[in-house]
Amino acid sequence: MSQYTAPIRDMQFVLNELAGLGELSSMPGCEEATPDLVDAIMEEGGKFAAGVLAPLNVVGDRNGAKWDAGTVTTAPGWKDAYQQFAEGGWTAIGCPVEFGGQGLPKLASTPVSEMFKSANLAFSLGPMLTQGAIEALVLRGSDELKAKFLDKMVAGVWTGTMNLTEPQAGSDLAAVRSKAVPQADGSYLISGQKIFITYGEHDMTENIIHLVLARLPDAPEGVKGISLFVVPKFMVNDDGSLGARNDVHCVSIEHKLGIHGSPTCVMSYGDKGGAVGYLVGEANRGLEYMFIMMNEARFSVGLEGLAISERAYQKAVQYARERTQGTELGVKGGGKVAIIKHPDIRRMLMTMKSHVEAMRAIAYVTAAALDTAHCHADAAERAKAQAFADFMIPIVKGWCTETGIEMASLGVQVHGGMGYIEETGAAQYLRDARISAIYEGTTGIQANDLIGRKMAREGGITAKAVIGMMRRLDGQLAEAAAGSQGEHLAVIRKALADSVTAAEQAVEYVLATFGTDIKAAHVAAVPMLKLMGIVCGGWQMARAAVIAQRKLEAGEGDADFYRTKIITARFFADHVMSQVGGLSHTVCCGAAGAMALDEALF
Amino acid sequence: MSQYTAPIRDMQFVLNELAGLGELSSMPGCEEATPDLVDAIMEEGGKFAAGVLAPLNVVGDRNGAKWDAGTVTTAPGWKDAYQQFAEGGWTAIGCPVEFGGQGLPKLASTPVSEMFKSANLAFSLGPMLTQGAIEALVLRGSDELKAKFLDKMVAGVWTGTMNLTEPQAGSDLAAVRSKAVPQADGSYLISGQKIFITYGEHDMTENIIHLVLARLPDAPEGVKGISLFVVPKFMVNDDGSLGARNDVHCVSIEHKLGIHGSPTCVMSYGDKGGAVGYLVGEANRGLEYMFIMMNEARFSVGLEGLAISERAYQKAVQYARERTQGTELGVKGGGKVAIIKHPDIRRMLMTMKSHVEAMRAIAYVTAAALDTAHCHADAAERAKAQAFADFMIPIVKGWCTETGIEMASLGVQVHGGMGYIEETGAAQYLRDARISAIYEGTTGIQANDLIGRKMAREGGITAKAVIGMMRRLDGQLAEAAAGSQGEHLAVIRKALADSVTAAEQAVEYVLATFGTDIKAAHVAAVPMLKLMGIVCGGWQMARAAVIAQRKLEAGEGDADFYRTKIITARFFADHVMSQVGGLSHTVCCGAAGAMALDEALF
Repeated sequence: MSQYTAPIRDMQFVLNELAGLGELSSMPGCEEATPDLVDAIMEEGGKFAAGVLAPLNVVGDRNGAKWDAGTVTTAPGWKDAYQQFAEGGWTAIGCPVEFGGQGLPKLASTPVSEMFKSANLAFSLGPMLTQGAIEALVLRGSDELKAKFLDKMVAGVWTGTMNLTEPQAGSDLAAVRSKAVPQADGSYLISGQKIFITYGEHDMTENIIHLVLARLPDAPEGVKGISLFVVPKFMVNDDGSLGARNDVHCVSIEHKLGIHGSPTCVMSYGDKGGAVGYLVGEANRGLEYMFIMMNEARFSVGLEGLAISERAYQKAVQYARERTQGTELGVKGGGKVAIIKHPDIRRMLMTMKSHVEAMRAIAYVTAAALDTAHCHADAAERAKAQAFADFMIPIVKGWCTETGIEMASLGVQVHGGMGYIEETGAAQYLRDARISAIYEGTTGIQANDLIGRKMAREGGITAKAVIGMMRRLDGQLAEAAAGSQGEHLAVIRKALADSVTAAEQAVEYVLATFGTDIKAAHVAAVPMLKLMGIVCGGWQMARAAVIAQRKLEAGEGDADFYRTKIITARFFADHVMSQVGGLSHTVCCGAAGAMALDEALF
Repeated sequence: MSQYTAPIRDMQFVLNELAGLGELSSMPGCEEATPDLVDAIMEEGGKFAAGVLAPLNVVGDRNGAKWDAGTVTTAPGWKDAYQQFAEGGWTAIGCPVEFGGQGLPKLASTPVSEMFKSANLAFSLGPMLTQGAIEALVLRGSDELKAKFLDKMVAGVWTGTMNLTEPQAGSDLAAVRSKAVPQADGSYLISGQKIFITYGEHDMTENIIHLVLARLPDAPEGVKGISLFVVPKFMVNDDGSLGARNDVHCVSIEHKLGIHGSPTCVMSYGDKGGAVGYLVGEANRGLEYMFIMMNEARFSVGLEGLAISERAYQKAVQYARERTQGTELGVKGGGKVAIIKHPDIRRMLMTMKSHVEAMRAIAYVTAAALDTAHCHADAAERAKAQAFADFMIPIVKGWCTETGIEMASLGVQVHGGMGYIEETGAAQYLRDARISAIYEGTTGIQANDLIGRKMAREGGITAKAVIGMMRRLDGQLAEAAAGSQGEHLAVIRKALADSVTAAEQAVEYVLATFGTDIKAAHVAAVPMLKLMGIVCGGWQMARAAVIAQRKLEAGEGDADFYRTKIITARFFADHVMSQVGGLSHTVCCGAAGAMALDEALF
């Protein structure tokens, strides 16, 4: 069965040398997140991921979560693993200290988050949604609500959920119809049906705390009439003990392509008169609160693409070393060899490896920006970091998840016929990965966010600033190329320069078109997102290559490790950044063909 | 549940206007394949596909084929559907008249083959493998073997299988170990284990005729020591009645990602002393015979990519018309609209539609070339057509199957969250499509065939001839562009010209490198295959656009239909052919990065 080993050395490189963990730990409130502490967390997290979560991944896939008369039973071993997870303090790692959390910055928790997702994506979704619910309460909950719920949620004793989607309201939350009727005691009675509720019901904890979007009786239509409520599965008494069962029930769970271990629930509120809920923050501002949390939730789903790719890569490498087939090209009379010797297998493995490195780099750098936006002493630096993070989030979410699907599919391909057999395990990664480009906003939604809120609305300020940063790397690349023996760094330098020029053209097109032809701009959205993913990934790999070259020149560190960084960046330049020119063309010229066909002729 | 409607009008266009069915039916031996007859076959085939096969697709997926103590039971309704299939004469359509077939050319049978694959891929595999077994016997079987087996196979009374793969011999058939020991009566006793045997055992027919690769006791090692045998499940008496059960058994079936309805069998030969088999053709020439059939088998699997994409496209369009979500961009105060109004949904649907048209065009044009290679009166024309078909087959197989996976995945994406729910049906197409890029030679194997046997071995003669044909279209495109109102044709012309130049560079690189750096050439193989798929698809769409423009200018035919051809070609130019420059770069420059990393550092 498939093993998982946390890629700690690669994580350390990105944390310390690309994302600036050292700098971050000098900012107020981040002092505890020293490289040493983060190393210790990664070591523990890696053990838990490999030892406890990874072996349960296939168990969850085969057994699934089971629904019976309103109860949901998770797969064998999952409840116990969850208890170990909670007891290990893993829920608390990024939560505020005042509610029992460890208060560590995002960058410090991101590597273990990646590990848990690699090890067992379906398992990781419960904690991820709990995190979202905790954040909602921390940000907008009253002191009373915080006191009632937060400690137990942070301790992992209770899990949380996010209830947004309804059958008619998926990407379009303006269409939410669930109702909340105020009661004399200040609470509300919630009714309506919610779908696609991850871990809406399960047997791992004694209570589940639902965050629910619903409308007050007098609410305006559309997005400005949605409020956020907290609805516990069991009422919570003032002493913290559990009270009556609330009127919220799981009426069925979905039969899905993947993440079988994660129950995706249809939740019914108020079948017996109404589920008791409490307003979070102010009335009619629920969607606004959701958007505050959405950045982090989208970041977290973006990590899924990275995490699945890493797992698929590890599995593919292992198979490619073990599987013997054919003889080595150009070697006469040689015996059978492991398929890793075949150039096309290497090409696939390098494609996976280089994409993993690109995704990890942009994700961790974005996490560091989120932390800087919270913690930097200087307000202007905070604002700059926030703008950068806002710009990157749809790219991390959209590009990493789309890439994760491709990489998981490549992992199947490396296995040949065995890849198609479920027992092998490679196919599960493809099935699991497929959801990540859909939930928490589809790739189209991310791309619309990128070109709209993150580019056009601010006249491209951040996009141009990012392009400026990329251009400023050129001098360092020139220097590194001059100091290096081979052509790798010169190729990386040219690929980045060409890509940045192409990216700039694409950005100019979107800025010019958004106000004049909104549909044309939106045809360009997903190609733009893909382009930006590749260019940002290539940029970070180029940074890594510069750093690696300096280390090699200085004779510092593990030379093989640093040489590898240069080689993967070189591969990415020729095999992936080479697509950027074409994507820029599609951004700038793709609307006419896309919009010309009469709707009836599809 | 998902409907399927055979896209007959589109098929007619490709058959008659791109692939030259009219010309073909003037060749000796093809006279019967008139457009009228082919229309009639398509009409009947479309009814059978939509009415009988399509509704059973999901039944097969959910129930799967079931193994129990050596017997395999197909899903409910499948046995009956198979009998209708056989009685309808669908097995016989392309088989020689002397064995009860209809003797129709490939081009005439290709559209119904596409329909059956669209309607129910897992079902279609039984007939496809039977076809392969029939061809083997027709080409190399003795008169005695033909008399014993062919009539019933052509009539669909018995099915056939191809037994190549063994656990240690997948892509590398040189490693086949199954044994064949000659008996005094001229038969052989076969023993060994075969895996991945499609329809190796089932309940749809009373007998199954296995074609099996095995080694004679004195056979040389490697590919030159493999012989081909025919091994019936039940012995066949001289009067055609069934005799004793032969010593070949299905010991298990695989649990697969998709095509659940198709039993993928582990077959054990000779557990009780040896399965009786008969040598097909000469000893030690089995692999050579397999290669003769491989062209057609690979073509047929290539069609699967097209067929699944068509089905996924139909489903996505239907959902996009029905699903209401959000308001129309740029329309203030408008109501909720069907998602087909959203530019990114259109982009996805256009991506699917244009790829379907590109795939169908290259597949049918290749079918016509296979027929021309058999039937043309002039030997030089036959040779030219054969070379073209040989060149196109790995492209049809490799590119259409890889594209089919992408299109099925896009189909899931159009459905949003519902796409991930198995009941919707979109996910099945993705699961089913995934195998097509693996079996009958992985994409890597196809790509190696393309750059090796089909390019380098002949010094690029055919590749250059194809490029020459593409270049000669430029004059017609210029004329069509001059006669048209908009810019579509001018854009198509430029995209083709640029792509052809990039393709030529890539071909020159492979020709120059194959003899000097075989590994570098093989790194380029899959990017080259993808490049060629896009360029050949774009070429055929450009041909279609020229034809359409002429029709529009002449005021002939359905103007909407012809305008659509121009629009899809335009879309393909900006969204797909735009990738060709980048792929050409990868072909020419991708080896250094791919081969640099020490194997231990993966």
